[in-house]
Amino acid sequence: MSVNMYQISIPVFTHVLNNLSNILNKGAAHAEAKKIDPTVLINDRLAPDMFPLSRQVQIATDAVKGCAARLANVDIPSFADTEASFPELQERVAKTLAFLKTITPEQINGSEERAVTLKMRGNDVQLQGLAYLNHFVLPNMYFHVTTAYAILRHNGVEIGKMDYLGNS
Amino acid sequence: MSVNMYQISIPVFTHVLNNLSNILNKGAAHAEAKKIDPTVLINDRLAPDMFPLSRQVQIATDAVKGCAARLANVDIPSFADTEASFPELQERVAKTLAFLKTITPEQINGSEERAVTLKMRGNDVQLQGLAYLNHFVLPNMYFHVTTAYAILRHNGVEIGKMDYLGNS
Repeated sequence: MSVNMYQISIPVFTHVLNNLSNILNKGAAHAEAKKIDPTVLINDRLAPDMFPLSRQVQIATDAVKGCAARLANVDIPSFADTEASFPELQERVAKTLAFLKTITPEQINGSEERAVTLKMRGNDVQLQGLAYLNHFVLPNMYFHVTTAYAILRHNGVEIGKMDYLGNS
Repeated sequence: MSVNMYQISIPVFTHVLNNLSNILNKGAAHAEAKKIDPTVLINDRLAPDMFPLSRQVQIATDAVKGCAARLANVDIPSFADTEASFPELQERVAKTLAFLKTITPEQINGSEERAVTLKMRGNDVQLQGLAYLNHFVLPNMYFHVTTAYAILRHNGVEIGKMDYLGNS
């Protein structure tokens, strides 16, 4: 028995992005119910030099689409990073989910030792596929989704751990 | 080519806990430098009904030791959940790291379809090994480590993304 690269990447990303979409929906509903300008939530951050909610969603989706494309050896879809409303953030998540649907197990499997080159702080960093997934993509995706959750939670949105974990 | 369960669990947990230890060290050093009572940081939370820093560290280590033990089919080490200082939290992380060292690839590999039973909100939930790792353990571990990071960051501790990601 063993595990393949597809099983530990694409369905995990899809699950997490669906949960993120649900969390964003609850944020938008909270703003509407409490008559809060939604941009207050979208521009909030946990520390003055941390990124706001909008950027957390952008980076989480970047981590996922970059990984899917690099492991499948196809071009990374480019999004403009201009989302400034809940509907626009939802649209970005939806576009990422649609891209993930185009990736097949056949494209991903066998990529565990494939060389992946990342630009990090101006330098090229080479990683093998599995190390890239384990030590870069998954920690980044979870970091930015958790931070998006935390920003909304910090602002009183009624979300809980089960919204983050979703139904497995 | 394929991936085995050990590669996507134990070394990942070890990497993340070492990063968490480094982050906690920076929190302790910040408290000392700024003459802040360390318990202010240890008891802080991002929302009134979220857990404080100490509990974030406890749950992150629980997720990891529970997974290692369940997949390896050995008893889960039980810790008392009484940590109330940075040295005590570091001790908990160190005990978890020491436990992970006792787990061999032979014990973990082949566990992807092993039935794992969890108590969740009073009910028994059955998951297969891989789904347990993908949809419960990794999201939980990253959630609580990210939240620990965010609590310290929100309190002005000078940590950055590279402390969270570590050196891969």
